[in-house]
Amino acid sequence: MVAIPYLIVVYDISEGRVNKVRKKLKKYLSWVQNSVFEGEITEGKLKKCKNELLKIINKDNDSIYFYSLENKLNYKKTIIGIEKDMTGNIL
Amino acid sequence: MVAIPYLIVVYDISEGRVNKVRKKLKKYLSWVQNSVFEGEITEGKLKKCKNELLKIINKDNDSIYFYSLENKLNYKKTIIGIEKDMTGNIL
Repeated sequence: MVAIPYLIVVYDISEGRVNKVRKKLKKYLSWVQNSVFEGEITEGKLKKCKNELLKIINKDNDSIYFYSLENKLNYKKTIIGIEKDMTGNIL
Repeated sequence: MVAIPYLIVVYDISEGRVNKVRKKLKKYLSWVQNSVFEGEITEGKLKKCKNELLKIINKDNDSIYFYSLENKLNYKKTIIGIEKDMTGNIL
C-alpha cells in the first residue's frame, strides 16, 4: 500500500485574489485556519491543484508554501487557543 | 544522535496581540511568511515557548497550530509565487 502524502498549505495572497485561491484549495483540501489548508492528496492531484493556482495568483506578489509530509502519521499537531472552525465559511 | 523536531507554526491572532506573538516566536524560530514560523526546536524549548505564548493570547479568540515533524528530513517544501523575506521586518 502506498501512503498518500499529507499536505499543509499556507498562503499570503492579496485581498483581491484570496477568495479565489481559497475556493480552489477547498476543492482539494480542508480549510483549518484563516490562511491554512491541510489534507491527504495524491501527487497527481497536487500537481493539478498547483497548476490551477498558478493561473490565479500574481507570481511576483503572492506566496503559497506547500509542506508535503510522507503521510499523516508523520507529524503531531497541537493547538493552543481555539481550533478554528472554517467549515461554515462561504466563499 | 537524537533528531531535533522540526516545527511549523501557523497562527490567527487579533491585531492587538499579533506583534507580541510574533516577537515571542521569533525568539525560537524563523519567520517565513506573514502568519508562519518554522525551525528546529527541542521539546524543552517548545514547551517553554508554548507557556510564554499562553500568557499573551486570548484563549477564546486566538489560534496557534503547531505541526511537529520528527525531523527536517521528514517533509518536502515547495513554493509557488514568491518566497517571503520576513527577516528585515521590525516588530
